[in-house]
Amino acid sequence: MFDPVEAVKELVRFPSISTDSSSEEGMEGVRQSLGTLLAGLGFEVEMVETPLHPVLFATRGGDPDWPHVIIYGHYDVQPADPLELWCSPPFEPEVRDGYLFGRGTADNKGSLMVHIAAVGRLLEKNPDAPIRITFLIEGEEEIGSPSFEGFLERYKDRLEGDFVLLSDTQSPSPEEVTITTGLRGIVCLDVEITGPKMDLHSGVHGGVVMNPIQALCGLCHSLFTPDGRINLPGFYDDVLPVFDWERDELERLGLAEEEYADFLGVDKFHSPEDSSPFAALRFHPSLEFNGIGGGYQGEGSKTVIPSKAFVKISCRLVPDQNPLKIQEILTEALKERCPTEVSLKIIPGHCGAPYLVVPPGKPNTPADQSPVLARAFSAADHAIMNVFGSSPYYLREGGSIPIIADLKRMAGLDSLMLGMCTQESNLHAPNENLHLGMFHKGISVSEKILSAIAGL
Amino acid sequence: MFDPVEAVKELVRFPSISTDSSSEEGMEGVRQSLGTLLAGLGFEVEMVETPLHPVLFATRGGDPDWPHVIIYGHYDVQPADPLELWCSPPFEPEVRDGYLFGRGTADNKGSLMVHIAAVGRLLEKNPDAPIRITFLIEGEEEIGSPSFEGFLERYKDRLEGDFVLLSDTQSPSPEEVTITTGLRGIVCLDVEITGPKMDLHSGVHGGVVMNPIQALCGLCHSLFTPDGRINLPGFYDDVLPVFDWERDELERLGLAEEEYADFLGVDKFHSPEDSSPFAALRFHPSLEFNGIGGGYQGEGSKTVIPSKAFVKISCRLVPDQNPLKIQEILTEALKERCPTEVSLKIIPGHCGAPYLVVPPGKPNTPADQSPVLARAFSAADHAIMNVFGSSPYYLREGGSIPIIADLKRMAGLDSLMLGMCTQESNLHAPNENLHLGMFHKGISVSEKILSAIAGL
Repeated sequence: MFDPVEAVKELVRFPSISTDSSSEEGMEGVRQSLGTLLAGLGFEVEMVETPLHPVLFATRGGDPDWPHVIIYGHYDVQPADPLELWCSPPFEPEVRDGYLFGRGTADNKGSLMVHIAAVGRLLEKNPDAPIRITFLIEGEEEIGSPSFEGFLERYKDRLEGDFVLLSDTQSPSPEEVTITTGLRGIVCLDVEITGPKMDLHSGVHGGVVMNPIQALCGLCHSLFTPDGRINLPGFYDDVLPVFDWERDELERLGLAEEEYADFLGVDKFHSPEDSSPFAALRFHPSLEFNGIGGGYQGEGSKTVIPSKAFVKISCRLVPDQNPLKIQEILTEALKERCPTEVSLKIIPGHCGAPYLVVPPGKPNTPADQSPVLARAFSAADHAIMNVFGSSPYYLREGGSIPIIADLKRMAGLDSLMLGMCTQESNLHAPNENLHLGMFHKGISVSEKILSAIAGL
Repeated sequence: MFDPVEAVKELVRFPSISTDSSSEEGMEGVRQSLGTLLAGLGFEVEMVETPLHPVLFATRGGDPDWPHVIIYGHYDVQPADPLELWCSPPFEPEVRDGYLFGRGTADNKGSLMVHIAAVGRLLEKNPDAPIRITFLIEGEEEIGSPSFEGFLERYKDRLEGDFVLLSDTQSPSPEEVTITTGLRGIVCLDVEITGPKMDLHSGVHGGVVMNPIQALCGLCHSLFTPDGRINLPGFYDDVLPVFDWERDELERLGLAEEEYADFLGVDKFHSPEDSSPFAALRFHPSLEFNGIGGGYQGEGSKTVIPSKAFVKISCRLVPDQNPLKIQEILTEALKERCPTEVSLKIIPGHCGAPYLVVPPGKPNTPADQSPVLARAFSAADHAIMNVFGSSPYYLREGGSIPIIADLKRMAGLDSLMLGMCTQESNLHAPNENLHLGMFHKGISVSEKILSAIAGL
């Protein structure tokens, strides 16, 4: 068997920054390295061309009656800047105090390697294991997976399987694992307001026209009620009630509000309906302004009435809100509320559906849940208890991984998401790292899950 | 007598951009050129050092019983960029079709030359004219005259005079002259809101904290009532009613709303209390947002909750609003209305008082109006009728020239403001120009005013 830490290091040495067109060589390198590794494990490897970065698609076939697990991962990484904040160069992986440092060590090269290594061990011990496995490793996760839906459309027949196994979410600590049961969806939208055709002198013309910043602020302000709810007709109509077991799990996690407030640097939270911040970010939809701009932004004053102003809005959605419906509701409200003295342009952005999977044995577990998925959850629960010494938490996350909902919608696949990194892993930040203790434990857990699926 | 057009050209050839520290040579050159010109007319010339650019102070003394006119002007100009939009180089003055083109031809080198040439003619014909004249020519007008108040404090004893004569305002056309009777004051203020201590991921943390952009939009929105009035307690308390003769003058001017809307590129005006836009900008105070910013402003989306957001606010004030009082009212309201989940920083900017002078013979002319000022207004009225063929308009302007109120407050001086340029003069813009017909007529008018003051 290969050394999994060395294997992660090899992947990290390729700067595979999907947003950076000069990273083509690193992208190609990491794909080839992964392909060689999987071919060495007996997989048939295809590089599937897409409009942007190819998808690595590797299969271990077998009897159609065998269970079929899809393992998802991504080989692209975030940019590494600001470089001066790194303690060691981002693309020269280095082990210090039980952590492997480098860009992509956690997100997602190390977390993906958990499952590659587990597959390696399983097949080393059981070369004829009755299990079909497909690796689906994309190169555009960090830029919103623009090619993924088109790829799924073409490959969905080859993805007829039982469930998706992946590690691209977080756990509370290296000693405790979260199985992520839900993700929020997303709707992005840009708003641009135009008033006068050019910037005007605010002395000569002040008080005569509707200032685009004023119109924009009024619009933004209208999107909330005084008690902090989102003020859009029908916005909450499709929100599923939260299940009791979800609230119990959150309570079991026992997060401290004070610590979270310190981390954020705020004195007070601002959550809807007096829910705790931890419940708010998991169970409630949100609407945030991501950026605003218009007029003079430099030092001192320049007394203009700007011609234009803009704001960038994104909503996070919860099951069963529909992104396209929410985009429509938001667009209509903005049009209706915009003052008639200015013109409004709405530029719709990307959308992604929310996702929820209910583990087996809960009061609301679907009656028709795939038995293989149920077996995987059960195996994961036992393996985590066994390897980490405590049961996993079953919790939704506030973030969005739209491809998870796409896999459900287009290929009927639910996902088992094992968090193999933590807040201290510095995802997308300098000194990204992989906790090697958690990494090795994760391999054992993944191997146990796969073994259980294979009936070994 | 010198050729006044050639004299303007000579001044224009010096690039005297007060905001540009590399323009030191041009600033020095134009001061020397003006000093030589005034010394040639018999003036005693001083260059008064200030923290930034010296003030040219030139005096023609005489019997303390003689009337004393202060002529104000400025020798600095705006930057010339974008250079590619100029039809001839900005600092190589060129006459085309009766206009002199170049940066500063109108603002303020040409307009100032109207009065220098008039003084020259007067003294050529009447070397012993019983009139004292002081030229006060500053070099910081285009950057807000930061040194002017300090200069006035030191020189106010030498400015004991009857009134200020200047041309730094506009007229409706080269054939019609406005005598500006009022200017709006100004209060600038920057607002900065801080929420979390760093930008946050809007998935991981969305719905938990008060978004600084949301807080800022709420604050900005709160500053207006639904009918467009400024929603600050006491804001309108000190606003003087507009005099009937002012409304009559505005009606006489006969501006067309449709043309103004076309010029601005708007379909609808937005003026308080249903006043016409022309009344709004002259007679009403205004509050404008000059710039707003926060979070991600680039292409596409970056789903952050920004740590900070800011807005730049300026109010234009009318008599008798007090800028410091308004700044206080605005500051207190912002503090009171700011959501408690975020922190607020207010950075006060520059202030300037509004100004109003009532010509003689109006129902509300002050009983104690200086007889020399009254004579000057009366002479100006006759001279303009005589030279331009129609009576001047007596109108307030929407813009601010804070030094005019400073001269009133600190030296007790009212101002007679003759508009020697028009909207077509392209002030602060490419292809700035001086209408030579208006220029020559202006010299005649100024000479007649000075003659009348001297009793000639």
